[in-house]
Amino acid sequence: MQSSFEQELAAKIDGKTKPPRSLGKLEVLAAQLARIQNTLSPRVESCSLTIFAADHGIAVSGVSAFPQEVTRQMVTNFLARGAAANAFADAFSVPVTIVDAGVVGPPVEHPDLVDARIGAGTANSLKAPAMTAEQYEMALQRGLQIGAVQEADACCFGEMGIGNTSSASLVGAKILSRPVSELVGRGTGLDDEGLERKRQLLARASERTAQTLQAGDALREYGGFEMVMMTGAMIGAAQKDRVVLVDGVIATTAALCAQALEPGCSRNQIFAHRSAEASHGPLLEALGSDPLLDLDMRLGEGTGALLAWPLVKAAAAFLSKMASFDDAGVNSGG
Amino acid sequence: MQSSFEQELAAKIDGKTKPPRSLGKLEVLAAQLARIQNTLSPRVESCSLTIFAADHGIAVSGVSAFPQEVTRQMVTNFLARGAAANAFADAFSVPVTIVDAGVVGPPVEHPDLVDARIGAGTANSLKAPAMTAEQYEMALQRGLQIGAVQEADACCFGEMGIGNTSSASLVGAKILSRPVSELVGRGTGLDDEGLERKRQLLARASERTAQTLQAGDALREYGGFEMVMMTGAMIGAAQKDRVVLVDGVIATTAALCAQALEPGCSRNQIFAHRSAEASHGPLLEALGSDPLLDLDMRLGEGTGALLAWPLVKAAAAFLSKMASFDDAGVNSGG
Repeated sequence: MQSSFEQELAAKIDGKTKPPRSLGKLEVLAAQLARIQNTLSPRVESCSLTIFAADHGIAVSGVSAFPQEVTRQMVTNFLARGAAANAFADAFSVPVTIVDAGVVGPPVEHPDLVDARIGAGTANSLKAPAMTAEQYEMALQRGLQIGAVQEADACCFGEMGIGNTSSASLVGAKILSRPVSELVGRGTGLDDEGLERKRQLLARASERTAQTLQAGDALREYGGFEMVMMTGAMIGAAQKDRVVLVDGVIATTAALCAQALEPGCSRNQIFAHRSAEASHGPLLEALGSDPLLDLDMRLGEGTGALLAWPLVKAAAAFLSKMASFDDAGVNSGG
Repeated sequence: MQSSFEQELAAKIDGKTKPPRSLGKLEVLAAQLARIQNTLSPRVESCSLTIFAADHGIAVSGVSAFPQEVTRQMVTNFLARGAAANAFADAFSVPVTIVDAGVVGPPVEHPDLVDARIGAGTANSLKAPAMTAEQYEMALQRGLQIGAVQEADACCFGEMGIGNTSSASLVGAKILSRPVSELVGRGTGLDDEGLERKRQLLARASERTAQTLQAGDALREYGGFEMVMMTGAMIGAAQKDRVVLVDGVIATTAALCAQALEPGCSRNQIFAHRSAEASHGPLLEALGSDPLLDLDMRLGEGTGALLAWPLVKAAAAFLSKMASFDDAGVNSGG
């Protein structure tokens, strides 16, 4: 039997001046926003984007079409407001924060950068655990803190890290207990030969550990600092009743880990965009998620989350502000 | 061979700091915006919504789940900012204009309403042409004028009119020379019995004229004043190099008519949302269009167009403002 809250919510949505269910997925979304804020009139008017950047030891084994120094170059590009995420965020007046979670080389010096570095990139998970237990704990705690201090109603979490689709494939495969080959994609744009090489390398990396791992162990063995920090941030933001927008392969892997570590936080997760990266489908399927957008994008940086933000804002506005048949004196038909 | 403009456009998109083609449909969209404004740096920062309302004689034959007076009630609701379109428009700071194109009863009195009335609803197209040649010309001209005075970079055109999915089905079927039964949907929410009744009525109405009609004749025989006016507005806005956002069944029928009357205006049309109304698929297929959004909505009022507006804004921002690999000193990989 439905709770009284759920009954009132359904009645409020059906009482709006529109044919029943004619707002489709936005009605489902509006109901989720009501549950997150525990009110029939959710207020979702501000949004923020936090991009976590870190390097991956496995990148040096040749799993990406781009060299590792691009992570650092893109951090500079984000700070200069030149990346795709900046263009979208500026178009929507969404503030952007860049977090150095562990980029290779010396710390990036910039007044606007949040320094949460765990180390100069992870170890190469082909040969050894990507990080120590201490590094994992530190990254998770820093992420939790970053999530907990978010002030916007909705949080987009993005990432940058050359090699991180490889890490995400391995983490996802271990948690879902599936062959990693089912979760490998072209990343930033590998050709057929590169993809085959990536597949073989990831299969070898996978053999290093048991077929199935708990989320924490999978992150420690194969994850990246940005991925662990994002996992923590998703949990921290959910604990503060924020809406958490989840987009591509790395963010969805973090969402999977966040749900494994803290099941309640699934309530806050809204899946924003279905990535063109091949490994995204199986992850979404495992989470039972059907994203709002499918724009054939595969960029990361939180770009898919940002593009879904206006839909979230619109869904809250419809539930909180639109007139009912009674208010408006409109005949409800039927 | 590609023109120099097309070559420069492709090079500019590929030179942005992102893996090639990783922004998917937004890259295609950005290129269309560049072509509409004939510049490699399109500026698409403002948007407006114009809702055309009118009544349909065929509504009295029982083709809708809602009574005809709802058109007028919804006009009042729009003016009181209570409808779904208002909630979305307000969330995105998009101004809304309501046009009385021909609602049944006396003229609606309201200071914010644009009075462009052609008559108190159309005739019942089951028995006679929906409008006279003079009414058709007047509606088209008024639409052209309304389109031509739009000042926003992007224009959403919405509609309200009980019975207008029936009119759209008939207009679309005649232009595409298809059996009307292939273009009938549940509209505002008919049950199986109502749908069967609608199908039979529309088949009868269709028998009144030849299998194939030119767009102008199809509109005159079966259209609505809001549909003709929207057709004109789409042409008028395109002639002023505006972006025209097209959403559901009625708007797509108007877009089809606009293209038939003025082929060049297809350049300006961006298809926003794939409606859940069954007749939308065949219309989109005929136009070769793949809308940006698929949110299972079927409301009209320009709601689908509004929800795609932020994507259009974001696409222009990426093309005009995002850094290139050269600008940002980022290694382009490969």
